[in-house]
Amino acid sequence: MQLTREGDYGVRSVLYLSRQPYKKISFVSEIADMYGIPRSFLAKILQKLVKSGIVKSYRGVKGGFSLARPAKEISVLDVVESIEGKMAMNLCLADRKKCEFLRQCPVHHVWHNAQQKFIEELKKHNFDDLSRQKK
Amino acid sequence: MQLTREGDYGVRSVLYLSRQPYKKISFVSEIADMYGIPRSFLAKILQKLVKSGIVKSYRGVKGGFSLARPAKEISVLDVVESIEGKMAMNLCLADRKKCEFLRQCPVHHVWHNAQQKFIEELKKHNFDDLSRQKK
Repeated sequence: MQLTREGDYGVRSVLYLSRQPYKKISFVSEIADMYGIPRSFLAKILQKLVKSGIVKSYRGVKGGFSLARPAKEISVLDVVESIEGKMAMNLCLADRKKCEFLRQCPVHHVWHNAQQKFIEELKKHNFDDLSRQKK
Repeated sequence: MQLTREGDYGVRSVLYLSRQPYKKISFVSEIADMYGIPRSFLAKILQKLVKSGIVKSYRGVKGGFSLARPAKEISVLDVVESIEGKMAMNLCLADRKKCEFLRQCPVHHVWHNAQQKFIEELKKHNFDDLSRQKK
């Protein structure tokens, strides 16, 4: 029950881009070198962030990546869910049909409430606030 | 970022035992059949719960398992951590040394707080309360 390395690197990448002037293009190599992430692995992560509208990609020799929208409009939850898919701390929260005991299960609401609390915390923080904190 | 099947089955097993008269011995086969868990997989899970002092095992022909302490003294968190180890929603929460960016990382406290909220919810619920809810 742990964030994947992919999810963690996604958060770091968006933090990196949030610390640049808005719309400034950054290279994959910059972010990869900063955090010691293999470049090909990082490229895949950035493509997921592009697909979900958090990051914008620029082609060409001077191509690279920038945020697709202001850092203030991107929460930690947005990034995590872009990489890992919609949060589901237990299988029954992903798809109710996957649990045949759901109707009789007194633990379902425990998972649901715990997940909600977790999600609320990740929603609270946007990358504009985070990027202004200590580097 | 999801509870393992092992963790989920551990919670169900403790719920099952909590619904029995205190100290009544249940067979692995009862719990396995109830939830459709492979018996050998369940036996391993129960051994982890024995090791952490939540479940007691009885040897012999009429051997089996019961709770090792009153259901009221067992939280959902106790069971999850017995199976999955101490909760760490991100690597840096498991071992600070594993993150070389920790001193400069503004996201660490976000993970920490979100995890705390999650943990508090799982701690709130004990198996005596849960076992009295709808079957």
